[in-house]
Amino acid sequence: MSSHYRIYLAGPEVFFPESEHQAIVAEKKRLLEAHGFEGVDPLDTDLEFPEQESKPDRGLRIYRANRELMDSCHGIIANLTPFRGISADPGTVFEVGYMIGQGKAAFGFTMEPRHYRLRAGGDERDALGHSIEDFDLSDNLMIECGITESGGRLFTARAPGEHSHFSSELFADCIKPLATQLLR
Amino acid sequence: MSSHYRIYLAGPEVFFPESEHQAIVAEKKRLLEAHGFEGVDPLDTDLEFPEQESKPDRGLRIYRANRELMDSCHGIIANLTPFRGISADPGTVFEVGYMIGQGKAAFGFTMEPRHYRLRAGGDERDALGHSIEDFDLSDNLMIECGITESGGRLFTARAPGEHSHFSSELFADCIKPLATQLLR
Repeated sequence: MSSHYRIYLAGPEVFFPESEHQAIVAEKKRLLEAHGFEGVDPLDTDLEFPEQESKPDRGLRIYRANRELMDSCHGIIANLTPFRGISADPGTVFEVGYMIGQGKAAFGFTMEPRHYRLRAGGDERDALGHSIEDFDLSDNLMIECGITESGGRLFTARAPGEHSHFSSELFADCIKPLATQLLR
Repeated sequence: MSSHYRIYLAGPEVFFPESEHQAIVAEKKRLLEAHGFEGVDPLDTDLEFPEQESKPDRGLRIYRANRELMDSCHGIIANLTPFRGISADPGTVFEVGYMIGQGKAAFGFTMEPRHYRLRAGGDERDALGHSIEDFDLSDNLMIECGITESGGRLFTARAPGEHSHFSSELFADCIKPLATQLLR
């Protein structure tokens, strides 16, 4: 089985120490390649950053490069493990929404087995009186239901992985139904 | 000036106590109506929830209703004030990505004047060794740069508003350039 399908690899891995990031990306690409797919990491760009460039301008160029990568891809596999809080990395969530908005294939995984409601305190309302959603879902319903409704699935770890934020097995779980969806 | 433009009102207000939510939505709709636009709140649905329905099924029906509302809208104004953590509500972020993915007009506002980097600790890396982005932006770069690149803008409060998560003045700031973009 071979194809030219490109899969965008969204996730907080871009913020990990370089060696961890590299190892996880290499593993994702290897697993996808076995299905004839090409994994595309957000850092697969040749951007250079001149010193005199303002920080927001630099951010905008990174955004454009990532958007172009997303536009070149046929689907997304998003690492939705909570990052720096009780929810997924918001950059990753934006990317899931962006791809689903374009009708592309979307799958995700999370190393966190608990539902959002429990992570947010487990009650009707939080300390500020804001209601806590109660749908037995992994994160805000828009994320997991967006994935489900697009034909994809969010896979939840049943056991700790080789990394706090990654498991080869869980990532591989995403690929098989993604391949079915893309190749049908 | 009159039009049939519909604007999706994304934000964490859906989690606020009913009276607060109602008051903010009414104000947003009033301000938009003055420009001939119709504000569309995520809770503007006539969903009913039978008791025997599973929680995830309920979530999926809410997602579908909200997606239909988004699909019926020409643009989005997102409340990106941090919610339950240092970043915007992830459901709202998904919706911003979804609308930008479809090339629709996107504006946002936040009551939080500090940059993301400061809220995340202010250093190169957080306690887990994960790098903290440094672009003088309000949140993860994908959100604000996505809005900017779409032709929109993220407005940041210069002073506290009448509600910790809302200011009429700041919301009104979003409408004028949105009208220019839609009516040109």
